[in-house]
Amino acid sequence: MRPSGRQPTDMRAVKIERNVAMKAEGSCLVSFGNTKVLVTASVETSVPGWLRGKGQGWVTAEYGMLPRATGSRTRREATAGKQSGRTQEIQRLIGRSLRAVVDLQALGEVQVTLDCDVLEADGGTRTASITGAYVALADAIAWMEVRKLTKGVVLKDSVAAVSCGIYRGTPLLDLDYLEDVEAETDANFVITGSGKFVEIQGTAEGAPFDRSELEALMTLAEKGIGELSVLQKQALSA
Amino acid sequence: MRPSGRQPTDMRAVKIERNVAMKAEGSCLVSFGNTKVLVTASVETSVPGWLRGKGQGWVTAEYGMLPRATGSRTRREATAGKQSGRTQEIQRLIGRSLRAVVDLQALGEVQVTLDCDVLEADGGTRTASITGAYVALADAIAWMEVRKLTKGVVLKDSVAAVSCGIYRGTPLLDLDYLEDVEAETDANFVITGSGKFVEIQGTAEGAPFDRSELEALMTLAEKGIGELSVLQKQALSA
Amino acid sequence: MRPSGRQPTDMRAVKIERNVAMKAEGSCLVSFGNTKVLVTASVETSVPGWLRGKGQGWVTAEYGMLPRATGSRTRREATAGKQSGRTQEIQRLIGRSLRAVVDLQALGEVQVTLDCDVLEADGGTRTASITGAYVALADAIAWMEVRKLTKGVVLKDSVAAVSCGIYRGTPLLDLDYLEDVEAETDANFVITGSGKFVEIQGTAEGAPFDRSELEALMTLAEKGIGELSVLQKQALSA
Amino acid sequence: MRPSGRQPTDMRAVKIERNVAMKAEGSCLVSFGNTKVLVTASVETSVPGWLRGKGQGWVTAEYGMLPRATGSRTRREATAGKQSGRTQEIQRLIGRSLRAVVDLQALGEVQVTLDCDVLEADGGTRTASITGAYVALADAIAWMEVRKLTKGVVLKDSVAAVSCGIYRGTPLLDLDYLEDVEAETDANFVITGSGKFVEIQGTAEGAPFDRSELEALMTLAEKGIGELSVLQKQALSA
Amino acid sequence: MRPSGRQPTDMRAVKIERNVAMKAEGSCLVSFGNTKVLVTASVETSVPGWLRGKGQGWVTAEYGMLPRATGSRTRREATAGKQSGRTQEIQRLIGRSLRAVVDLQALGEVQVTLDCDVLEADGGTRTASITGAYVALADAIAWMEVRKLTKGVVLKDSVAAVSCGIYRGTPLLDLDYLEDVEAETDANFVITGSGKFVEIQGTAEGAPFDRSELEALMTLAEKGIGELSVLQKQALSA
Amino acid sequence: MRPSGRQPTDMRAVKIERNVAMKAEGSCLVSFGNTKVLVTASVETSVPGWLRGKGQGWVTAEYGMLPRATGSRTRREATAGKQSGRTQEIQRLIGRSLRAVVDLQALGEVQVTLDCDVLEADGGTRTASITGAYVALADAIAWMEVRKLTKGVVLKDSVAAVSCGIYRGTPLLDLDYLEDVEAETDANFVITGSGKFVEIQGTAEGAPFDRSELEALMTLAEKGIGELSVLQKQALSA
Repeated sequence: MRPSGRQPTDMRAVKIERNVAMKAEGSCLVSFGNTKVLVTASVETSVPGWLRGKGQGWVTAEYGMLPRATGSRTRREATAGKQSGRTQEIQRLIGRSLRAVVDLQALGEVQVTLDCDVLEADGGTRTASITGAYVALADAIAWMEVRKLTKGVVLKDSVAAVSCGIYRGTPLLDLDYLEDVEAETDANFVITGSGKFVEIQGTAEGAPFDRSELEALMTLAEKGIGELSVLQKQALSA
Repeated sequence: MRPSGRQPTDMRAVKIERNVAMKAEGSCLVSFGNTKVLVTASVETSVPGWLRGKGQGWVTAEYGMLPRATGSRTRREATAGKQSGRTQEIQRLIGRSLRAVVDLQALGEVQVTLDCDVLEADGGTRTASITGAYVALADAIAWMEVRKLTKGVVLKDSVAAVSCGIYRGTPLLDLDYLEDVEAETDANFVITGSGKFVEIQGTAEGAPFDRSELEALMTLAEKGIGELSVLQKQALSA
Repeated sequence: MRPSGRQPTDMRAVKIERNVAMKAEGSCLVSFGNTKVLVTASVETSVPGWLRGKGQGWVTAEYGMLPRATGSRTRREATAGKQSGRTQEIQRLIGRSLRAVVDLQALGEVQVTLDCDVLEADGGTRTASITGAYVALADAIAWMEVRKLTKGVVLKDSVAAVSCGIYRGTPLLDLDYLEDVEAETDANFVITGSGKFVEIQGTAEGAPFDRSELEALMTLAEKGIGELSVLQKQALSA
Repeated sequence: MRPSGRQPTDMRAVKIERNVAMKAEGSCLVSFGNTKVLVTASVETSVPGWLRGKGQGWVTAEYGMLPRATGSRTRREATAGKQSGRTQEIQRLIGRSLRAVVDLQALGEVQVTLDCDVLEADGGTRTASITGAYVALADAIAWMEVRKLTKGVVLKDSVAAVSCGIYRGTPLLDLDYLEDVEAETDANFVITGSGKFVEIQGTAEGAPFDRSELEALMTLAEKGIGELSVLQKQALSA
Repeated sequence: MRPSGRQPTDMRAVKIERNVAMKAEGSCLVSFGNTKVLVTASVETSVPGWLRGKGQGWVTAEYGMLPRATGSRTRREATAGKQSGRTQEIQRLIGRSLRAVVDLQALGEVQVTLDCDVLEADGGTRTASITGAYVALADAIAWMEVRKLTKGVVLKDSVAAVSCGIYRGTPLLDLDYLEDVEAETDANFVITGSGKFVEIQGTAEGAPFDRSELEALMTLAEKGIGELSVLQKQALSA
Repeated sequence: MRPSGRQPTDMRAVKIERNVAMKAEGSCLVSFGNTKVLVTASVETSVPGWLRGKGQGWVTAEYGMLPRATGSRTRREATAGKQSGRTQEIQRLIGRSLRAVVDLQALGEVQVTLDCDVLEADGGTRTASITGAYVALADAIAWMEVRKLTKGVVLKDSVAAVSCGIYRGTPLLDLDYLEDVEAETDANFVITGSGKFVEIQGTAEGAPFDRSELEALMTLAEKGIGELSVLQKQALSA
């Protein structure tokens, strides 16, 4: 019944391949089915101006899509001369999501930038980005710990994200592009490894939804995040 | 216990003054306490390129803040040469929220732009904008109906928005600036007059939240939207 | 004979309402007939780079129009990505006009920014802006004086502005939009309370004008500024 | 008594050399003393969008300064990514001044662009630009007439410009840079060959000025324009 | 003697993996040692304005680097708001190089865009880009041929590129980053499969070079291109 | 046989007129036939950020074309809001070429900017720019030496540039516009007074070229540079 043939409660095949970028302090190639995102974590010693001298760090994110990650070619933002509203919205979300599990004091006066570049887009690029960014961040923190650059335990929890939606009346987990385009309601959930909510963004694309539908999506999301957390742990212990 | 002295379930005083802009097809000045937003609805006969010739209309929004709407002067975006990510995020939200209650076919090949300009900012500028934008839009649609420009019933429902948050452990309705800055969790709800959800955006600013907290915020939001819907109806029938 | 029914030497009804922006050090809503401008004066402790450390202040202005201040919607400059030539010309004029009555040494190393945002445009937005900006500035200076932040008498005089024009062969005071569009000659005058000229900008929109016509416009302007100066004084003593 | 040793009523040496740009339909190198401006007039068959199909033409101007036209190097506007407010103000003035003597109907559906590029700046670059632009425009119109491209007499009059100012209490004609920097009042006059005013822009740089001072400047300007008009005629008949 | 341990006439290990981007008409991941570039070829039916209606196509290229392709993070061009001069130079070179082997008439009124995005940078990103772009282009042309969209033989030859340089007095083939940084002279060669030159760009980074040195670099380049042409053929026949 | 009537090995008439810009530390007007470039050298005491405090200087260049330097008017880059890729490519080339003959240590912590503004374009604007820039730079260095601002011999050699091309099968020296447009191959050579190569950029515009053709162009270039070096010396000793 799903275009992909999956059951409503099935995630796509998720893979997280670490250390794919030789020069970054942390990196991974994360795929949710045919969606593929290359994430790097860069540790830099300069923090934003408003944080300078406060002995505290910052975690931020930037997001981009290669022009032909999509079915028809999308204009390159560097050529257009600016990032789209959508891009900015996504990269702000990724940054907030990661900061929710980071102790910025323990990080020290350092900035970690998570660059999430979509190589192939098939729905869920922001949720794959967040899920992979946690892994790249964890590697960058480990890199810092080896060099005794941190001031305590930096990561308070893990974090992952998944999208759910109401598609032809049925709540589905982890929408791909075909499902996403047609879904009446689309919601993104960012949830910690311990099951707490960091962010929830639900949007009625077609008809407005009611509270019970939102509850159903939450339950699906909790299931999906459970699986993603296990995969993150496996990747990081590999 | 709230800085404002309100009860946790109290909205601020909300006022909606219609027809404040002589030249616009619809307009209102909406205040949520000390937050004041001037909203105009402009009916234009040209639609975005990708809609041309499809016999269907579009509703979009733009958002701005006067430089001294805030405690210290904010740089004017026209001088900076671009809209911030926050501005784009908000105006995209306003547009989506209004489109959720509009029958774009019935609107005909026409674009309605909702300009939401914040004269004074004290928290909740996006929720006040959405709440006022519905009233300005309703007036613009009425203006079109008088001129027989619509092709059926355009407005399927009313829509309003409110923010809620967990502040020092207590769920509060309609955060003002002081509460917003300190809230552990902040959520914006866009809900129709008939009680359906159009958009929900919840963010853990401090500690992640759990499902029961989100439930509490939803209940508060439903109460607030109920009151806002009544005020919108009163304003439109005045 | 004027579209507005006014006599050639009549100003429109002018109103100046102070303290309309809670957070600004000075503010007013000034109307010249249907033209309405919200002016705020913001006191900031940083001055432009080339003035730093010179013990002297600066007064500058920014000008904007809400998109639907005009009969048909005007594109928002923040969206367009830059201020138009007209906007820059006007805000440079406002800044120069105010600086002409300010003792920048007495101001101390402080910058006052006058933000003039047009809520409704019906001709004369720049002259209303200057006239209102003086009132907002005076309030901001008073705010500084209370806090002993000035180094002597800052305001050397008051200043106001009015437009005049030759319309169907007759010199008119204070053009509204309909008159402005058709005027053969259009001139803006910035004049101090003591009757001295700060700026005069006369432009032949149709046929060039001769010296006697310019003389007639000057005489009208002096009459108009006399009235505006009284209104400014009344507003400030209210 | 003038830094330049000139009498108060003396213009600088003015030269107008025609046909300095091989490819332009009209061009000249105009110098007012050490100020040198290269002006070209380009005839193009496309008019601005809002004029298309109206059988009428347009005259417009662009202004630029080579980076080292000035005492210390000025940043190139192409590198800065935008034209300054001053540049826009000047090019708008040049365009308006020229249009005042052009019959746009007779021009036909054609745009003439006057490019005024300052090779050396020593005060009066905008007045030299206007004075030279008239000559380049006259040549471009002559070029069109030879090809029977006009629809009647295009030029209704000639036009030239000069600056005057109050310097150490004395009214002076044609300020150079050293005088301009120190002048209490600075005024630019655009006047036709037949002695009518097209534009007057007077600014108090120091103390405000009174009406009699403005009168004195006007008298000087009329003298200067008289001389410039003769030089324009001589150049065009050479 | 080379930092990499290679002989002066050795290329790095070169790999070309085709069909790495599901949605593109042609694509490959090309690596020259540790330099990795993802190339996609996109076929679009719209050509640049100046080619419209001429029955002829266009081939163009865009180049980008992921922020952490480099040792320290490079600012994202989409964030900076423009492409650097270096980026533009490179993408113009790639486009010109490919067009040299394409019959634009035979291509028909179609544009093929080669997007070259550097995943890892270790010297030679532009030469790897050109070498890979030929393979992606060949696949896109094959895709068109299957659909009978071409009007004859589009590819007149193959094309590849390599850099050479004088390093500590010795001519070297295929510089990596460490060699490139220190090289006295650096030259990029674009050469067809049949051994003709399409582009040569030699630059003295340190001391100027003489003709015999350039000859030595040309000979090395011809050797390298010979090997690259074989690899391209193998990749395309795989 | 050449459109210009020149022999294949003939340069156009080249003129270098020094000290054409009163305010610059060095300047010249260089013409290669009908191509005319105004070059100024500006000495400034601030160097780029990454060089600060290293006791070493920098030489850089900017390039521009007046809008009507070309047969039809070219859009002004300051209006377009950015420099084209071509402009950036050229100014980077000019800067590199000059730096090749400068001892940046001997220059001291000073930046010299070469502004090359094309007044008339008839092919070879970049080669004329480099040739003239050397002369302007030499004058600026002499200006510094008189003031004892240098720390040793700054200029290690002279440098000049010329373009050559294959036109209808024949190698030609110093292409003008008509030849350049039609040339099968176009190459720019930057060569020192002592005959060493600084830069070579050869491009097949039509059919790819072979090594013997490139050899022929090099020989022509060496002849042309020989002549240009003599002219530079003559100009500097005049």
